[in-house]
Formats: sequence, C-alpha cells, structure tokens
Amino acid sequence: MPLTGAATADRRRVDGLIEEVVRVVGARHVLVGEDLVPFLTDQTGMLRGRAVACVRPGRTGEVADVVRLATRHSVPIVPQGGNTGLCGGATPDGGGRALVLSLQRLNRIRSIDRENDSIVVEAGCRQETVHEAVRAAGRLFPLSLPSRGTCTIGGNLATNAGGVQVLRYGTARQLTLGIEVVTADGEIWDGLRDLRKDNTGYDLRDLYIGSEGTLGIITAASLRLFPLPRQEETAFAALPSIEAALAFLGLARARLGELLTSFELIAATSLALVARHLPEMPLPYGAASFTAPWHVLVQASGDANVAERLEATLAEGLQAGHLIDAVVARSLAQARELWTVREGGLGEAMRRAGGAIGHDVSITVSRIPKFLSDAEARLREQWPDVLIAVHGHLGDGNLHYNVLLPPQQRTADAAQRVHRMVYDSVAELAGSFSAEHGIGQIKTDELRRYKSSVELGLMRAIKMALDPKGLMNPGKVLI
Amino acid sequence: MPLTGAATADRRRVDGLIEEVVRVVGARHVLVGEDLVPFLTDQTGMLRGRAVACVRPGRTGEVADVVRLATRHSVPIVPQGGNTGLCGGATPDGGGRALVLSLQRLNRIRSIDRENDSIVVEAGCRQETVHEAVRAAGRLFPLSLPSRGTCTIGGNLATNAGGVQVLRYGTARQLTLGIEVVTADGEIWDGLRDLRKDNTGYDLRDLYIGSEGTLGIITAASLRLFPLPRQEETAFAALPSIEAALAFLGLARARLGELLTSFELIAATSLALVARHLPEMPLPYGAASFTAPWHVLVQASGDANVAERLEATLAEGLQAGHLIDAVVARSLAQARELWTVREGGLGEAMRRAGGAIGHDVSITVSRIPKFLSDAEARLREQWPDVLIAVHGHLGDGNLHYNVLLPPQQRTADAAQRVHRMVYDSVAELAGSFSAEHGIGQIKTDELRRYKSSVELGLMRAIKMALDPKGLMNPGKVLI
Repeated sequence: MPLTGAATADRRRVDGLIEEVVRVVGARHVLVGEDLVPFLTDQTGMLRGRAVACVRPGRTGEVADVVRLATRHSVPIVPQGGNTGLCGGATPDGGGRALVLSLQRLNRIRSIDRENDSIVVEAGCRQETVHEAVRAAGRLFPLSLPSRGTCTIGGNLATNAGGVQVLRYGTARQLTLGIEVVTADGEIWDGLRDLRKDNTGYDLRDLYIGSEGTLGIITAASLRLFPLPRQEETAFAALPSIEAALAFLGLARARLGELLTSFELIAATSLALVARHLPEMPLPYGAASFTAPWHVLVQASGDANVAERLEATLAEGLQAGHLIDAVVARSLAQARELWTVREGGLGEAMRRAGGAIGHDVSITVSRIPKFLSDAEARLREQWPDVLIAVHGHLGDGNLHYNVLLPPQQRTADAAQRVHRMVYDSVAELAGSFSAEHGIGQIKTDELRRYKSSVELGLMRAIKMALDPKGLMNPGKVLI
Repeated sequence: MPLTGAATADRRRVDGLIEEVVRVVGARHVLVGEDLVPFLTDQTGMLRGRAVACVRPGRTGEVADVVRLATRHSVPIVPQGGNTGLCGGATPDGGGRALVLSLQRLNRIRSIDRENDSIVVEAGCRQETVHEAVRAAGRLFPLSLPSRGTCTIGGNLATNAGGVQVLRYGTARQLTLGIEVVTADGEIWDGLRDLRKDNTGYDLRDLYIGSEGTLGIITAASLRLFPLPRQEETAFAALPSIEAALAFLGLARARLGELLTSFELIAATSLALVARHLPEMPLPYGAASFTAPWHVLVQASGDANVAERLEATLAEGLQAGHLIDAVVARSLAQARELWTVREGGLGEAMRRAGGAIGHDVSITVSRIPKFLSDAEARLREQWPDVLIAVHGHLGDGNLHYNVLLPPQQRTADAAQRVHRMVYDSVAELAGSFSAEHGIGQIKTDELRRYKSSVELGLMRAIKMALDPKGLMNPGKVLI
C-alpha cells in the first residue's frame, strides 16, 4: 500500500515540522483547527484553501527560521498580510500541504527620518497605521486603498498596489526605497536602503515587489514620504462623452500639473446603481446632470492657490464643452461624501445588485474610447441586456470594468465567456488584464494566454533561479 | 601544439562569425581595423579594450540575428550606445574575443502619443533628439545629462541614468513605461507597453534597466512624458554650512513642493577651481559671498507663480540664516550661465587642475554632514594638503565627491587608497558607492567588497538564469 505509506510519511513530516516551528515562534503563534479557518478564505469569500497550520512569527529572524524549516521538510509556504487581496494570492490552494505564514505580528514602525523623508516599517504594519505615524510627523505617504484599515504594507508591496493617487505619486513600487526579504533559502537579504539613487547591480527590489510572495517574503520596507500638502480640493463633474473625459484629463494635466492627485472616472450606470441600491447615500448633483453618461472625481492638492486653480480648470472645461456640470466640495465633510461614493458606494451597490463580473484592466489612455466600444459591442452581441458599470483611475488608464448580467444568465460559464471577451478586447489594444490587483490564483490562465512565450520563459527562469524547489506560494502567478 | 591549434580554431570561428554577421547587416556596418578603434576606448580615454569587430545593426531583428550568431559561435557581446559611460560598461575588455554591438543605427522615434503622454524610441536615439521631438509636441522628457548631445536612450536605460531633475521626476527607471529587449538567446521580448499600471507577473523591465547589458540588450523603450512647464526659474545661493544646506533643502521642499526640480550642491572649493582655471566663466556673485563654504543651484518649474514662490523661499531662507546670499537669474541667458558653472565648469576646471579622483556616491540625506566630516578626517590624516571638491544632487543624497592630491602624490596606489577611504565612509553610513554611474568594469571590486553575500548570490542566480552562457557583456557588473 504505497499510497498510505506515503501519506503516513507526509503526516509524520508535517508533525515534525509543526513541532520545530512551535519551538521557533511559541505554541500560541501556531494556529490549527478553528483558529486556522480565517487564514484559509480570501476576503471575497469565493476562495477556500487548506493548510497544515498558520504560523505567526514576530521577528524577521523567526520568518527566516520558519522558511528554513519548511524548506527542509519540503512544505510549501503561503505568505499572508491583511488578507485583503482580490486575486487569491494569499490564500492556500486545496492541497492542504502548505503552511500559511502570517506577517501580522511583524507590525512595528522601525524608524522615521523627516530630513530624508523616509520611514522604515515592517511588513505586517497596516497601511492606516503608516498614514497616521507619517501624518503626525507632518509628512504624506500617498499609497491609499479603500482597505487601508486592514491591508498591510507587505501585501501592498507583494502586489505592487496602486490606488487613487498613482497619477501623481506612482504605485507601491515607486514609493519604495528599499526592502528586507527572507529568500526562499531562508536567508535574510537586508536591502533596506533609504537612498534615492543606487546603481549597484541588478534591481532586486523591484523584482520582489509585485512577485506576490512567489520568490521570497518581504519582511520590511523603507518607504518614500512627501510633504503634506496644505490644501486639498475635490470636485465632481458630469461629462457628455468618454472623449470629453479624455480631453478634460488633458486640460487638467496641463493646467494643474503636479497639483493633480486623482482623476477618477465613474460611469452613469455605476452612479445609477448607487442611487438605486444605496438611496441613503448623498449624490453630488441633481437628476439632470446625473444622467450624463460619464462623471469624474478630481482631486488637486498642493500648498497654494489650489482651489482657485481647480475652479479655473473646471470653468475652462465647462466653457470648452468638456463638462456639463461640476461641483466643488465646500468642506472636508463634503469632500468625504464625494469620495464615499467612489470608495464605498460603487462596490457595495454592485454587491446589492447581485454581484458583478469584475475586471481590473489598463489601456493606453488614448485608446480607452476604442476599448470601451469594442468590449461593449462584443458583450452586447451575446447579452443584449448586459449592464456595464465602469469606474477607475482614468489618469492611469486603469479601468475597473464590471459586467452585470441579468440574474437568470449569471452562470460560471457565462462569467468565463465575459472574461474572455473583455480580456481579448484589452489584449488587442496592448493593454493589461491586471492593472493593479495582480495574478494570484485567479488570473494564472490569463497570464499563460496573453503573455508571449518569451516573457513567460524569462519569468520561469527567474522563478527557477530564486525558488528552485518551488515552495514559495506555489500555484500563484506562474503555474 | 594544442595552444596554436586552439588559437587557429578560435580564429576560424571568428572569421566564420564575421562572414555571417556581414550577411545580416551588410559589410559597411561591420567595422574592423582603424574603423574599429573609436569603439574600443571609453570616453575618459582611460580604458582601452580589444574586439574582433564592431557590428552596427539597423533594426531589432538584426540585433537578434547577430546575438544568435554570436551565441552559436560562443563570442561575447559588448553592447554600446553613445559611449559616454563613466565606468567602462560599454568598453570591451582586453581579451580581444568580443564583438562590440553598436546600437547607434537604431535611432528612430517610432511614435509619440500626446494623449497618453508617452513616446516610443529606439535605443540608439540620442537623448537630445528625444528632448527636441518631445518639446515640439509641447511635452517634457525630464532625463537630462550634460552628455545629452551624444549619449543614447539605450545607454541611459542600461545604466539607469540620473541627472539634475531626479528630485522631481526620478531616474531613467521611473521614466520608462516599457522596453523591447533582445535576450541572451537572441529572442525578442516585446515589453514595449505604454501603460502606467501593469501587474502581470515579474518586473522584467526594471531588471533589464540598470543591468548594463549583462542580461540582454535593450533595443527600444516607451518613455513617460510630462507637461512642459510654462515657467522655469533658477537661483544660486551661498550658505554658511552643510547643515544650513540641509535645512534649506527641507524649507524648499516644504514651500515649493513639486515645483522644486533641481537642488544642486557645490562646494566653495569647487567654485574656486572654476575661478582659477576658467577665469573667463562668469560666476554668480561677488567675492564676499563666493567664499561661503557651500553653494546651491536651485531650479523651480511649474505653470504659475514660480518666480514669486522661489523668491519668497529664498527670502525665508535668508531670514532664517540658512542662506548668506542669493541671486535669481533674470533671463534665460543668465540661467544658462548659472547652469554652465555646474554642468560644464566643474568638470573642466578639475581636468585643468590635473584631474581628480572621483566618486559618485549617495548617502541618506540626513547623514550627509556626518559622511562629509568622516571622509575628510580620514583623507586629511593621510594627506593633510588634500583638496576636496564636492558637488552633486543634494536632494537625492547623491554627491560627486572629488579628491585632488598634490601633484607629486598622485599615484595609482594613492587613488586606490582614496577610493577605499571614501567608500568605507559611505558603507559605514549604509550609502551607495555608485549612485548613478553604475558598476561597469571599474567598480566590480567594490561590488564584491560592499555587497552582502546574500545579495551577490541573488544577482549571480539571476545572471545565470538569463545569460547561462555568460556571453552578455562579460567582465562587467558581476565577475
């Protein structure tokens, strides 16, 4: 009975590993049974995996010890931060052989340097904790996601997170000066530099960032800070067409320059979902403007004349016919209301509408009108009553393209066909099928379909080089 | 006589390769003999190498063909752009077996997209050509080096070039959206995306950028463009101490925010060299201010109120005692004069003074005063009459730290000892021994000395993975 023999050996190996891991981190930080459950399900609740345990080391040295033990026992490791990812990158697969390694106890702010405008934080620090510490020092850390109260810096870096201020400040990668990594060998690479310029060899930092834990585990990071802008202004505007939205984006870039922090697009269909399913949520303007096909939420920030310049830009946009209507928030509370529509309202409204088939894509900004008409034509040919609710970061060419099918047509098979149509339209215009959410376990097929064999070959060579045993987050990104 | 036999076989192999390469690019683009000489010497004239030929392909497909041929014949390849590098990265070694592959004929601007703020250029495009094309489209490409008339975009990316506007816009890496690469296998990776966000797999782009031709050959790039600022103002100021320079940098960042484009530090010793060796060059102010120990060249640019805000910042700096004196350029011609001191004067004055032992280092901004006093103490203990002429990009923590020894003490051995003292001081403060010039062939020893074995191991694994035969620019970066 070789199978049972193997299973017994496997079981013994796992028990041996658990025993050794307990010696490293202490029994209360090795979770099994009921305590393990929250670490096995992703935040959407759609993905459930299995694992032998969740281990929660408290220091980088303990992470390295655990990785070395797991490697010796050939047990795969699934690193996990705040578990807010949208592609299942932090959720173990169904095999049940993996160890979930939670970074949540590595949550210290190690140092802050106001003169160098940098902060060193551990991977398990929540994003909001960093915001608060930095703000208290009169600085800005611009990476900001709706999940900021839960998501961690380690997860942000593992997925190269984006958010609503990329237009001005860049993604997580551009905001990181250095990282500390536990390699697949269980060694510690101290790449925690806080230098703006360092051309000494290959860019390992940017390789680990965005690799979703498949090459090693980021345990700490040195992050760039910025002056805290003294003024911040938010506006909401209604536009007659997507072409007008692009024209207004060009105008806003030209007139506001670096003051332009966010330029968020929202389709009228999306706003209508909010109005229908969240009637208590205040909307920016009356019914007439509300029916315009497109809307933008614009934020400008800086030290002087921000309101004047934003208002002048809106006035010019109105005069040029790019805009139909515009409102400027007159208070912080009003600005928060406008942002709530974007950050809380859209997602919740789609959930209440029965759920959408979502896509996180990016397209060269100038090609967005063509993408929208191509994708819609494809979808509508198949499903004439499809509802397309788009919002996203227009300034980055990043659209969250949500497709709502009539209830009786919502099948898993239909979702797959919708994905294919949308991603094919993206690929034809040389766009990306994952702008900011990553690959995780749910877009591995797309990676193989839409990437060239040359690019896949290069990625596989790097994976083999840095994780030759294939134990770092298997089943994610490259499979 | 096995040696002669091997040499004859080697010769035959090379002749066979040349014949095949001629068939790919045409005889007039395969240079040997006298025509080959300019490609064998670096721009400082200090390094001279040997090669079998210089081949100048005209298209990406030809580059791939040449790489495949060279790989088949096991002939190393040394990619070369404008040949303006400062670390010998583009100069072949003395072995005489390599093929220099010049990218200079790949010099087309493939496309420009004003709406997406991006441009696609080939590797051999001169930087100045890109500036001109982009400016004609009302846009800015901010990467700007003193060698802009000669250096190429391919070389800029291979070395992740910096320059005087990194403070605001970042290095070459941050300015690049996508690249096209001929891999060490002679395959073409089309990574020429012009997306702001793309999280689909490992960051190959940033790995090739800065790898100095040791992993593959960048043949084209998609670059980020910015709005062309309508106003640009330049000032020159005298400061009482390095601490005052840091305090004024903090003030300028806080008051000017994103308007602050350049913040260049110049030591009084450096200005004095210009005054002595280039008496025809106009200096910014009179003798009294001129003797202040430190000076800064500050540039601000934007769309509105730039002069007012720069002048207010200078006034605040004077009042706070950070500044002793300040002048603002009243015309473009005056601004150019100030920049000429920085970009042309300093280097030329040092050459006329007999040459300096140069270093391109970076240090966490807040640690710069300590670095300056540590390094000077070390040097002065050994050479009491040493002249230290520092300039650099203070905002990036990047100093060009130049050491002039009395003529009778200028030996190769002394230069090595100076390097060691300066780099040891840098390493003790966790700085970088190559901020923006790269490693090439002249800093390979420092790479091995100052990098951890973990980091070197990761780099070697990547090199082995992407260039298993070791034919891409051997002897550079990792040896």
